[in-house]
Amino acid sequence: MTISVLRTADAWWVKTPTGAARIDTEAATTGALLADRAAIDAARTSQSVPLDSLALVSPVTAPCRVVAQMTNFESHVRDSGMDPKTVPLTFFRKSSASISGPFDDIVKPQHVRFLDYEVEIGLVIGRDIPVGTTLSEADLPGVIAGLVITNDVSARDIQLPQTQFYEAKSYPTFTPTGPELVLLDADELKRFGDLRLRLSVNGSQRQNAIVEGDMLYRPLQALQSLTRFQDLSAGDLVLTGTPAGTALVAPAKAIEMIGSLLPPAVKWKAFFKRQAGNPKYLRDGDIVEAMIGTDDGAIDLGAQRLTVRYR
Amino acid sequence: MTISVLRTADAWWVKTPTGAARIDTEAATTGALLADRAAIDAARTSQSVPLDSLALVSPVTAPCRVVAQMTNFESHVRDSGMDPKTVPLTFFRKSSASISGPFDDIVKPQHVRFLDYEVEIGLVIGRDIPVGTTLSEADLPGVIAGLVITNDVSARDIQLPQTQFYEAKSYPTFTPTGPELVLLDADELKRFGDLRLRLSVNGSQRQNAIVEGDMLYRPLQALQSLTRFQDLSAGDLVLTGTPAGTALVAPAKAIEMIGSLLPPAVKWKAFFKRQAGNPKYLRDGDIVEAMIGTDDGAIDLGAQRLTVRYR
Repeated sequence: MTISVLRTADAWWVKTPTGAARIDTEAATTGALLADRAAIDAARTSQSVPLDSLALVSPVTAPCRVVAQMTNFESHVRDSGMDPKTVPLTFFRKSSASISGPFDDIVKPQHVRFLDYEVEIGLVIGRDIPVGTTLSEADLPGVIAGLVITNDVSARDIQLPQTQFYEAKSYPTFTPTGPELVLLDADELKRFGDLRLRLSVNGSQRQNAIVEGDMLYRPLQALQSLTRFQDLSAGDLVLTGTPAGTALVAPAKAIEMIGSLLPPAVKWKAFFKRQAGNPKYLRDGDIVEAMIGTDDGAIDLGAQRLTVRYR
Repeated sequence: MTISVLRTADAWWVKTPTGAARIDTEAATTGALLADRAAIDAARTSQSVPLDSLALVSPVTAPCRVVAQMTNFESHVRDSGMDPKTVPLTFFRKSSASISGPFDDIVKPQHVRFLDYEVEIGLVIGRDIPVGTTLSEADLPGVIAGLVITNDVSARDIQLPQTQFYEAKSYPTFTPTGPELVLLDADELKRFGDLRLRLSVNGSQRQNAIVEGDMLYRPLQALQSLTRFQDLSAGDLVLTGTPAGTALVAPAKAIEMIGSLLPPAVKWKAFFKRQAGNPKYLRDGDIVEAMIGTDDGAIDLGAQRLTVRYR
């Protein structure tokens, strides 16, 4: 059975059948907590408090490395006007200052116009992995300590003209994370393909997809590629891409066509003028809910509920 | 007068008129060393050893954040087929596992074909700056502890098809750094615009430009933008872009034009077929030398000498 770790401002908790039990640990970071597995296990039989008495924050602590996979679901690649056969395995970084809690607000910076959502499975790294380490299937359960819901919030009007995704996806509150860090054993991790990602805005479903048959580059291949150029530490977070259904749809080919004929300033003005008529971008007060789990409930990462706030 | 900090595998040093004097410090990281300014100052009048007796490594220690500015010199923007007027201030991340010493080899990974160089001024951050901090001109001398030569080595055949620069610029040895971390006071920092960047391959000059009149987004504006979405810590490294003269020249517009008509795989095959005839990409055994300083010698970051090695 999976183990769900929760975090409040001043403590770590583990989910029990009746609520949550406090973990007796000195750990200040997710990496340190994962190293204190005995404390996590001991808490599972401790006295519980009701879940709704806890004000949960992200179970992934900052600073840490936040690495994300670009366009990694076939459905999203097609949505973006690209060909899944030619999309390379590609990473970008997000600032860990963007990590926020699972029930926090998503705050739109004043200069941003087009705010978008992307539900993603987050891999939480379980141990330090020096650059150059060769990973095999058998290493995966130790390397991936567990999974967590993340939302790769994106400022599309910053992201597209800059071409690099780092800033547009790194403003504070742009990586809501949690509520549960679900620790998986080797057999549970094998069910990764059965995970279903769902996201709704104001109760209306926007994203709903299963990993199997849609995700292009699975965790083993992604981590094998990443360790060629990046050290990883326990507690680091790897986002694995989002399926179809974001507000931004199919601009890539259109942008490329227009872009080859127009100067950039004119191109982007025309593009975002059209986007202004797209009602799916997040508005002030919108409620964004995200859920990830297997349909049979064997793995359940819980549910996020975020409110969008315009500054 | 500027202060030049050097580093060997087991000690920190400060340059003296006759060589280098060991700094009496427990600091294990660049951030910790910068906090121990008294030790640096004390060493300046200590006994020296000859400079050439030291095997210098990077004066910037890893792990740290390595952030880089995209296309930030007008000359390089034009080289890349873009318009300086419409290039936004844009950042990407490099892995700090890519940091190597100023006299180390640049090692080409086996799967990389087109290896390029980019001499850049590195800003070494002097104090912790939480995300959301507002910076003004007066803060700059505290925020920037000093400057260092960096080379933003790039695998062009990875970078262009991926579109995100993170992996292509992050392989081990892809950020040669040093030899000198030159600490500047407020008046010295005002001469930033007078810095000249030079790079040669096998003695033949490839890059030679002065900041003033060529750099688009100067450090104050860059750091003001960066602190909107990124925590910074003492010892972090910010690369400020490269001037004209890299091996890769002017593909952007051409790629866009071809790209709007061809499928990506065909587009890149055609593009790199042409690049195979470009003799400027780095070859096995090439010597890459880089220098940065003011023409009057008041600020001198020293010189890097790197050898290219094909694996």
